[in-house]
Order: sequence, then C-alpha cells, then structure tokens
Amino acid sequence: MTVKIGLVGTGTVGGGVIDIIHNHKEDFKNRLGIDIELVRVCSLNKAEAEAHGAGDIFTPDFNEIINDPDIDIVIELIGGTGVAHAIVTNALRAGKNVVTANKALMATAGEEIFGLAKEANVEIAFEASVGGGIPIIDPLKHSLISNEISSVLGIVNGTTNYMLTRMDEDGMPYDEVLAEAQAKGFAEANPSADVDGFDAAAKIAILASIAFNSRVVMDDVHTEGISNIQPIDLKTGHEMGYAVKLLAIAHRMPEGIDVRVHPTMIPEQHQMAKVNGVYNAIYVTGDAVGETMFFGEGAGAGPAASAVMGDVLEVSRHIALGIPPIVGCTCSEKLPIAPFENLQTRYYIRLLVPDRVGVLARAADVFARHDASLRSVSQEGTKDHDAVNLIFVTHEACEANIRAALAELAAMGDMLLADPTVIRVED
Amino acid sequence: MTVKIGLVGTGTVGGGVIDIIHNHKEDFKNRLGIDIELVRVCSLNKAEAEAHGAGDIFTPDFNEIINDPDIDIVIELIGGTGVAHAIVTNALRAGKNVVTANKALMATAGEEIFGLAKEANVEIAFEASVGGGIPIIDPLKHSLISNEISSVLGIVNGTTNYMLTRMDEDGMPYDEVLAEAQAKGFAEANPSADVDGFDAAAKIAILASIAFNSRVVMDDVHTEGISNIQPIDLKTGHEMGYAVKLLAIAHRMPEGIDVRVHPTMIPEQHQMAKVNGVYNAIYVTGDAVGETMFFGEGAGAGPAASAVMGDVLEVSRHIALGIPPIVGCTCSEKLPIAPFENLQTRYYIRLLVPDRVGVLARAADVFARHDASLRSVSQEGTKDHDAVNLIFVTHEACEANIRAALAELAAMGDMLLADPTVIRVED
Repeated sequence: MTVKIGLVGTGTVGGGVIDIIHNHKEDFKNRLGIDIELVRVCSLNKAEAEAHGAGDIFTPDFNEIINDPDIDIVIELIGGTGVAHAIVTNALRAGKNVVTANKALMATAGEEIFGLAKEANVEIAFEASVGGGIPIIDPLKHSLISNEISSVLGIVNGTTNYMLTRMDEDGMPYDEVLAEAQAKGFAEANPSADVDGFDAAAKIAILASIAFNSRVVMDDVHTEGISNIQPIDLKTGHEMGYAVKLLAIAHRMPEGIDVRVHPTMIPEQHQMAKVNGVYNAIYVTGDAVGETMFFGEGAGAGPAASAVMGDVLEVSRHIALGIPPIVGCTCSEKLPIAPFENLQTRYYIRLLVPDRVGVLARAADVFARHDASLRSVSQEGTKDHDAVNLIFVTHEACEANIRAALAELAAMGDMLLADPTVIRVED
Repeated sequence: MTVKIGLVGTGTVGGGVIDIIHNHKEDFKNRLGIDIELVRVCSLNKAEAEAHGAGDIFTPDFNEIINDPDIDIVIELIGGTGVAHAIVTNALRAGKNVVTANKALMATAGEEIFGLAKEANVEIAFEASVGGGIPIIDPLKHSLISNEISSVLGIVNGTTNYMLTRMDEDGMPYDEVLAEAQAKGFAEANPSADVDGFDAAAKIAILASIAFNSRVVMDDVHTEGISNIQPIDLKTGHEMGYAVKLLAIAHRMPEGIDVRVHPTMIPEQHQMAKVNGVYNAIYVTGDAVGETMFFGEGAGAGPAASAVMGDVLEVSRHIALGIPPIVGCTCSEKLPIAPFENLQTRYYIRLLVPDRVGVLARAADVFARHDASLRSVSQEGTKDHDAVNLIFVTHEACEANIRAALAELAAMGDMLLADPTVIRVED
C-alpha cells in the first residue's frame, strides 16, 4: 500500500519532515506495511526544498498539491492564519486528509476546520501544534479519555522559558536576554507571539478544548506575557521559595472554564520549576488517573517533525485499512468561560515608584482599600537613585480588586514610573 | 451503539473499573455516542463485586463471560500467568476483544496472545500493564511511531520506589521499610515480585518489545532487586551526588537489545532523581523527538482503571465503527539480546567484611587483578564492632570483570560476611 503525501512549508519543521521520510521510508514499509511517498513539496523557497533533496518535486503553487487527485494527505507547515487557512480548508474541501502544526489556526478556526473534515469524511490531525514532540493531544483523545479532566497546565512556550531561565541563571536584563534569544534563533525578529503569550494562549486553547470537550478559542484566553519581568523578580521569587514560569493554565470550574496565560510563581520543589531552557512540560489532572506529566523538547526540527509524522503514519494506517476517521471534533459540550476577574489567588506585584517618603504607605493604603491583604512589602533600590522598586506580596485576593487597585495607582499620576509587574503565585 | 463488557477480577483495579463505568456511563454516551454496558463480573469474591454495586451481574465462573455471545470485550484483571492465561487465550479464541493489565502474562506469553488475536481478528490492549495510568504504550505505538527509539528507561515499580524513598528520607533499614510498605498495602505479603525486580522486568520487556519492534520476554531481562540496599547506600550516594533508584533500562545497541533491571545511581539533578514515593516516570529517547518523559502514579485503583478504560473505550470506538484492529503485534524484527556480561559502566560496591588489618588491601588487589580500576575506596563502621563496610567506586569497568572479582572474593571464604551490594552508576 502506498500513501502519497503533499507537503506545504519547507522551514525548520518541514525540512525535518522531509528528512524523516527519507531516513525511515524502509522502516515504515517493514513495520507498518505502508510505503510513505512524498510526491510534492511546496514553499516560497525552492532552495530550502533542494537542501533536503526535494528539489525535483518542488512547486511554488500549493494548488498543485490540493488539486492533485493522487495525494492522500496534505501537510501544512507554513503557520499563521492567512494562506495556511486557505490551504487547510481547501485541502479538506478537496477531500484530502490534513496534518498541521498550526496552533494559531486550530485555536481560531478549529470549529470551521472540524466541520469541513467531517463533511468530507477525512481526518484533521494536529499533535505538533502543542508541545513539539511531546505526545499530548493523542493521549488526551485516547488513553485518558475515560477521565473527567479537571486541569491542564504547563510550560508550553520554549522561547519564553529559555529567556526566563537565562534571566534566572545569569541575572541578564530582559532586553539582553531577548537579543540573545533572537541571535540564537530561539526568538523571532518580531518576538510578540512568544513574549506576549499568544503562542501559549493558542496552545492552551487547543488543550482545553480537548480536555474539557468544549470549544475554547484564543480570544477566550486571558493572556499576559513576560515583557515586564526582570531578574529582580526571579531573584525575589527564589527568596520566597518560588520559580517564575510563563504558565498556560486551564481549569474546569463550577462556573465554567478558567483559562489563562501569565507569568506565575510556582514552588521551587515542584517538578515544573525544574523544567528549564527550551523544554516543555504539560500536567494533566483527571479524576481517575490523578496527576500525570508529559515532558520533552517543545520545539525544533526533530521534535515537531516527530509529532507531524506520528499523525501522518496514523492517518496512513487508516487509509491502508480503508477505515473512516475514528475521532473527529471532541467538543460535545458548550461550557462558558469563567470571568478572569473572579480569579482568587496570591499576587506578587512590583511597582517602580519615585524614591520619596510616604510612597510605600500610600500604595499600601490603596491595596487595603481594595480588600487586598498584604503578606509582605519590601523596597529595593534601583540603579536610578530617584526610583525604587516596591514589592508587594498579597494573601489570597480577587483579581478584580487587584486590577482596581492598580488602576487607582496608575491614575494618581505621581506614583508609577513604569507599568506594574504582576506575577500570580500558585501552590 | 451499545458495547457489552465482561470483567474478570474485582480487586483494586477491577473495583476502579466498575466505578468509572458507573460514574461516567452518561459522559461516554454523550461524548463518544457509545453506551458502555457492564453485563457480567466474575471473581472469587462476590462481596467485592457487591461493594461496587455489581452483585446482580456477578458470576463465579469466567466461562460464563467467555462463552456469552453478547459480550464484545473481556477485561482480565486477576493477574498472574495461570488462570489469567486461560481466560485471555480462551476469550481471544472465542472472538472477544481483550483488555488486560497483566504485565507478567504479556511479558511471557505475548507472542501466543498476539497470534490468537490476529487469528480471531480482534484486539488485545494492555496500556495498564505498564506505568499505571501513565499513557506510554499508546504513545509508543502511535505518536512516537516515526522515531527510531534508542532507549526506554524508567522507574516503573512504585513499591520499591516508595521503599527507597523512605530509606532515603528516614534512614530506616530495609526490613523495617518493607514491613511498613506491607502494612500500608504498598507491598504484598510475599513481596518478591516487587523487591526482586520481576515486576519491573516484565514491564521493561513489554516496553522494549514495542520500542524496538522486536520481542523481549521476561527471561531476557537481567534482573536484580533492592533487597541488598540499606540506608548507608543512599547516604553514600548523596555524598557522591547521586540518588539510588531501581531502574528498568532498555537500550538499542549495535550488538542487540541491552535490557536490565537493577538499583542504579543517577545524578541528583536528573529529573528522575526527584521521582519519589509511588510515582513512576518513563524516559523515551528517539532520533527525532529527542528525550521525552512520561510521569504519573504507577499504581492504585484510579490510575490503573483509567488506563484499562482508555483501552476499553478505544476498542469500543472501533467496534462502533465496525473497523478491524488497527495495530496488532509490532514485533517485525528479531534483534538479539546483548549479553549482560558485556556491560560497561561504573560500579558502587559495598562489601561487609571482618574488621581486620589488610582486608581492604586484599579486596582492592582482587579488583585490580580483574581490571577494575578504582576511583575511591572508603571504610564505614557498622553497629557490629567485628564488621565494617568497604565501599568501592570503580571507573568504567566491564560487568564480566566485576563479577569475576566478586566471585573470587566470595570464594576466599574469610572475606565476605554478606552478599555484596552492587549499584551501577549512570550519568
């Protein structure tokens, strides 16, 4: 049995996919009895295809893949929600099975895509959209399916985790760490998707949708990035016994799905506190299974291509057996999204304020009037002699009250010299 | 669509399975469109079935399940290789799909069982046989399938991990820790399967078979348990920067599959060193995915039942769609087992010897004559004034040489007061 593949995108992951097919073609034949044949490769850059020995099957026009009646599976690896949307939806309409690593697309147009796949009776698979090579979507849809999942959370963005790790280990300020990450190719020239948390937001939207059987889209996710974090926050965290991580969090709550991405202090003894560099870790808690963790490299050619090819081979097995898709859209419920303002947690808040007598008392008074009980307040000097950092740690407080307090401080005009740094503290 | 289930075994895991079916029957209908109906429960103990509200469908005779033409899936949860073998093989012969948690059976009779399943064109699923609720067999057969796996290793026995954790944290001697584990229900009255490493050996045989596409049976696994480990070994390990864990290890080597279970020192900074108590963790390294880890509770009613029900629901999806088994036996190759004697590693060896001048020099001489270069030697007193512990740590040495040295020491008659404690050191 031969299964014919058309690939769109020859960047890091696309190149990795071509390499796996070249290196393991015989293994797949021997082990699965399936000949995986890459018949067409499309991208904007022919040299990339050539670099992976696929110059002879190159086309600059993705329609040549979508409209090729011989192609069984289309792999979309260009990312984004523009051209990729056209490729994925048109491929499904043309009756192709689709494998994608596109988290932004799945987290915004998931409903449309599942609908098209169902109409055409074909498969849409996207294991590589979350956690690089870590199997997580498949376990949620299969091995863990008998559980009522209460939470999914984790470190799902390698770029920001690398940056936080570097800030922590070397005390490098944010701007320097970002420049280093860009120089090493871990961060894009426009780093916003990573550092502002949008990449993590797309991933947790996908995981929450599957875990809770109810559609969560990117816009549902309250998203904060790491651009206000500085080494002082990591240092103070350590003194408190916490590590700072950009966590993507989804909980099933009585009032709906609580889903958010923000810098978070987690206890240093927690396993996730030790997940450093570009590694990802995802925790899933279910009523039967208890707490499970999935860990591995969150990005890179090999890991992401491993996930893409896992999907390709699974769909190929189904094609070889002539069987229909087994698991389609899993969103059988319509749960509300819990308002972020209702969150109850502890807060670490750092304010850059003028170095004047009475500032600390005024700020503390604002928190008190908004029902935010303080556990500790400390003051740390800065390089600038006219400014100091005020660090507040609250007892459990309500998000709405913290926001009101911060808004009042900002409105005072003479208090805040920069946007406040807010890190939620979870135990 | 209704799928009818017959369950054999109403112990911890069987009880957990009944509970999940009762609690989530409606969820399964809503989410999968499948009515999972438990129609018959068999065990030696009717009271157990009654305790889970299954007294009315109880039978003491497993043949009533195997021969019931209405039953689609038989779940075997009695364990062992005697009656369980008859139940599983006869159920397959009768054309039933089978789900089991039985590691000993799969690691000894796997080939026969896969053969019977293939003949009958039914499924045999056994996710719960390894790692409790941790999804590991399914990821190896699906998400990670495009990888050439180079190693699978981990902590796969919760009982011994609990015992080592207690010895480490509280300095309790082996016998007391074992008694405590038995009192808490973590260890059986006859603890041999756990403490002698056989349970871990069955699990690594199963994992190695799937990871390397080549049958590994329990007898292929070189197996050592923890009964020679005492708190002094954990204490000395810490001084060296290592934690002591009972590791199950399988490597794909040029000369074949290296597969073994033994106490192992691993660096304290390694994630696995922090896996304590009854938790399990399994590392998989593949050529594309790199290093991934799967972590969770390794035993208990909930986790194991989660894995069993994941299999049951997956098979049920296939039954509902009227499709044949997708993945059968994955052992398409016949790799040799690498001789354990060829292992090259570092060794921690503790010898209980008479407290006499010259004993240390004589023992050191024996190691030297067997090409085992020593990195350190130290002597630790014991409660018994006539005996001391000699602790040797070698540079990389060959297993065959270490064994010859230990045999020579034992043959001296006046040297060893107890069996030596051997812990391999891996970095």
